[in-house]
Amino acid sequence: MAETAENGGVAEVIAFAKANHLANLIAIDNTASAHFIEKYTALVENGFDLVSSNKVANTVDFEFYTQLRKTLAENQKRYLYETNVGAGLPLIDTIRLLHLSGENITRIKGVFSGSLSYLFNAFSEENRPFSEVLLEAIDRGYTEPDPREDLSGNDVGRKLLILARELDLHNEFNDVQIENLIPEKLASGDVDNFINRLGELDTTFEKFKKEQDENHVLRYVGELYGDLTHEKGGKLEVKLVSVPKNSALGQVKGSDSIFEIYTESYGENPLVIQGAGAGAAVTARGVFGDILRLAERE
Amino acid sequence: MAETAENGGVAEVIAFAKANHLANLIAIDNTASAHFIEKYTALVENGFDLVSSNKVANTVDFEFYTQLRKTLAENQKRYLYETNVGAGLPLIDTIRLLHLSGENITRIKGVFSGSLSYLFNAFSEENRPFSEVLLEAIDRGYTEPDPREDLSGNDVGRKLLILARELDLHNEFNDVQIENLIPEKLASGDVDNFINRLGELDTTFEKFKKEQDENHVLRYVGELYGDLTHEKGGKLEVKLVSVPKNSALGQVKGSDSIFEIYTESYGENPLVIQGAGAGAAVTARGVFGDILRLAERE
Repeated sequence: MAETAENGGVAEVIAFAKANHLANLIAIDNTASAHFIEKYTALVENGFDLVSSNKVANTVDFEFYTQLRKTLAENQKRYLYETNVGAGLPLIDTIRLLHLSGENITRIKGVFSGSLSYLFNAFSEENRPFSEVLLEAIDRGYTEPDPREDLSGNDVGRKLLILARELDLHNEFNDVQIENLIPEKLASGDVDNFINRLGELDTTFEKFKKEQDENHVLRYVGELYGDLTHEKGGKLEVKLVSVPKNSALGQVKGSDSIFEIYTESYGENPLVIQGAGAGAAVTARGVFGDILRLAERE
Repeated sequence: MAETAENGGVAEVIAFAKANHLANLIAIDNTASAHFIEKYTALVENGFDLVSSNKVANTVDFEFYTQLRKTLAENQKRYLYETNVGAGLPLIDTIRLLHLSGENITRIKGVFSGSLSYLFNAFSEENRPFSEVLLEAIDRGYTEPDPREDLSGNDVGRKLLILARELDLHNEFNDVQIENLIPEKLASGDVDNFINRLGELDTTFEKFKKEQDENHVLRYVGELYGDLTHEKGGKLEVKLVSVPKNSALGQVKGSDSIFEIYTESYGENPLVIQGAGAGAAVTARGVFGDILRLAERE
């Protein structure tokens, strides 16, 4: 959608709502647009609650993030985005309520990406080259059209940042230390060229696999830890790790996501939420869940 | 609290709220009283939302259950009881939203009791008589004062009934098929007598343990299955089962609870919620979470 159309569209919708005295309005953003979020403020100021699966508003600069929340508070409106992390899994609301109710969250760790979950689960279990498993994931539509968007770790990094900000940490995307799985030589060029050269990844990943301790498997995880009671005390890391096969992270199957939430009063036993963390159907249901939450309030 | 005091108490509270024009009222019931729930209706009719960790209102006859919901709807009030099942785990709200958003839940299965989780986790792992592990659980305060309340399976049965009713099943407590772990000869008599005779349980449980397949462990589970789209189509079972050690249920540790929620669109991979599902601190935080939810609505 071109900017003028977007501008016109939102202004028209607001005008229509006003002219017809509509109440209990909800604006739903299921785009991935970095542009459309600029309309959020106008929508909130004109009586709309917000629901979005779009992660951009929560991962752009912290100034926008806090300004939007200020606008929401001033207008007594809500912004729900449960599907930003873990699709239909009840993750953000759980973390939000734990945090609001005064529970000290000390660590959040997990497999945040359905596509990378599938990739490393299959690669760890099966005796096949990395490129073959990756090609299969691409063919099944588990990855983004350009699989480098998954393999770069940026998507996992964005999800980690969203969780960190739920805990009132003042972090920016640049603070996330991301282990990019794409070697420099394959980072540029078009998708077809990248897919033709997938075989060049095999030696590296075979090495990672072989160098593990016995009964260990590879997992690409996001981890938030450090002093989470201080605005800038959190460490945000996205990385490939080797974990015991019989640990919770090691047990994850298929394209499931898993989130371990450690808190002061739960101690060493985390609260664990696990399940299908990606996919259109699951995300659509999650968006609908957010709408139901808002509707119940009226 | 005697009945007259309770009556007086609630009537006085309502009168005080009215006289002072108080708004946004929440009544919180953290008793285990089968009596106090009779005041719920009067509280709702006089402007109170309800929060309770008390399970009674959700497990007495279905007529009371539906009548209370009718009163709540008529008065536009809400009744939150997240801690009724799984203490601080985000279970009831998750199941409610899944169900409301049209997702077909096909099965719910899990270890619903922290005390029985501890008991069978330790008994399965360690080479000790059942009575010794049970005595330890009693000493650590994991069980009810009379541990037969846990071992009878009634508490797990009540939790299962609450989950079934969340899915609009019209079941009564009598519909729950419960495997009572107390032999007839120990069912009556006082607690001290029961505790002195714990050793009489050992032969039976040792037999259960020995008769399992290799790499299996014992778990006391609740399970809801059947045709959950029909009011009376659900099967509700509470029973001691033997499961593979490396399954999700077999992996549960300490006194953790685990809930597996199977749905039509998630298929064979359930949504799993796991963590400390019992204890005063966790429950208190869960009650506070419910209060925050209501407060956010205002």
